[in-house]
Amino acid sequence: MRTAMHCSADAPDAQRRALANAANLLGDDTVPLSGLVVVFNGDGVHAVRADSPVADDVRGLLARTPEETNSPEAPTIEVCACSNSLAARDVAEDELVYGVDVVSSGMGELTRRQADGYGYIKVP
Amino acid sequence: MRTAMHCSADAPDAQRRALANAANLLGDDTVPLSGLVVVFNGDGVHAVRADSPVADDVRGLLARTPEETNSPEAPTIEVCACSNSLAARDVAEDELVYGVDVVSSGMGELTRRQADGYGYIKVP
Amino acid sequence: MRTAMHCSADAPDAQRRALANAANLLGDDTVPLSGLVVVFNGDGVHAVRADSPVADDVRGLLARTPEETNSPEAPTIEVCACSNSLAARDVAEDELVYGVDVVSSGMGELTRRQADGYGYIKVP
Repeated sequence: MRTAMHCSADAPDAQRRALANAANLLGDDTVPLSGLVVVFNGDGVHAVRADSPVADDVRGLLARTPEETNSPEAPTIEVCACSNSLAARDVAEDELVYGVDVVSSGMGELTRRQADGYGYIKVP
Repeated sequence: MRTAMHCSADAPDAQRRALANAANLLGDDTVPLSGLVVVFNGDGVHAVRADSPVADDVRGLLARTPEETNSPEAPTIEVCACSNSLAARDVAEDELVYGVDVVSSGMGELTRRQADGYGYIKVP
Repeated sequence: MRTAMHCSADAPDAQRRALANAANLLGDDTVPLSGLVVVFNGDGVHAVRADSPVADDVRGLLARTPEETNSPEAPTIEVCACSNSLAARDVAEDELVYGVDVVSSGMGELTRRQADGYGYIKVP
């Protein structure tokens, strides 16, 4: 099973809860998760700036090895940011947490992932 | 057709609208609905406490028989609460509306249901 | 690929961002999009009133021809409003932006579309 999470929340507290949702999924040993992607768009992209209040939560998520999850399926873990949203906020790619992928559009990525079989959860 | 609704809203008014969304789906005779599950997580779990302002709406949803819906398919109706969210708020299982199921995690349940063919709607 | 977007936001600014999300998806030439439907329910239905602050954004979305998108697949574009939500707010069908479809229920339409293979994105 694979899931795409979508976060467009602007408040750091909400972004932190969204990232905690991702951690909770990885910690659920009843779910044979093989892939997780968290897509940030709109003001949500501020979450993945290297200097954001939740940058360490993003780093922690990306640093998690498959063995450090409870899934029996060694999930891949990805974090993406919408290029339109970054451009509209004058955020350059090199200002992001290392490892975050910039995607053509958050909407496009969420569409593509679901067409590929991912579930979808709006977080938080 | 089956749908998983997801509510993480903390305000009772928003929780009430989420439950009204569920009732509206059950009342739509153009949809051959065979299953509905409403998953509460985060501060949304307060909705399913036996003493919550919307507890009667939760009870009403769970008490609805297939005949009391407009679906031609006799839908099963379930309400779930995330165990992580309950634990973080010191809410015990026996404080919940009778009939609410506690699931390992809201994120896991929503992932599992979609992998099983359910649609997903974030409410309200 | 086809996507159903869902907007229940009451604030015109949020509704405008939801419609911008739709435009961003249509502008993403990496997504072979063949269908897009934006479903408004709850207070979100105010967005599609002919006199709403975002009515021109709704008109612009509906007026977009397949050639005016970047999708290689000539997407159909639809905007829907929930009949329950309209009735609860005393909004008549002839008060809506021309071209908006009234559906039996927003929840039912989102269930039906996903059963038909559409992805789902809650916007904004």
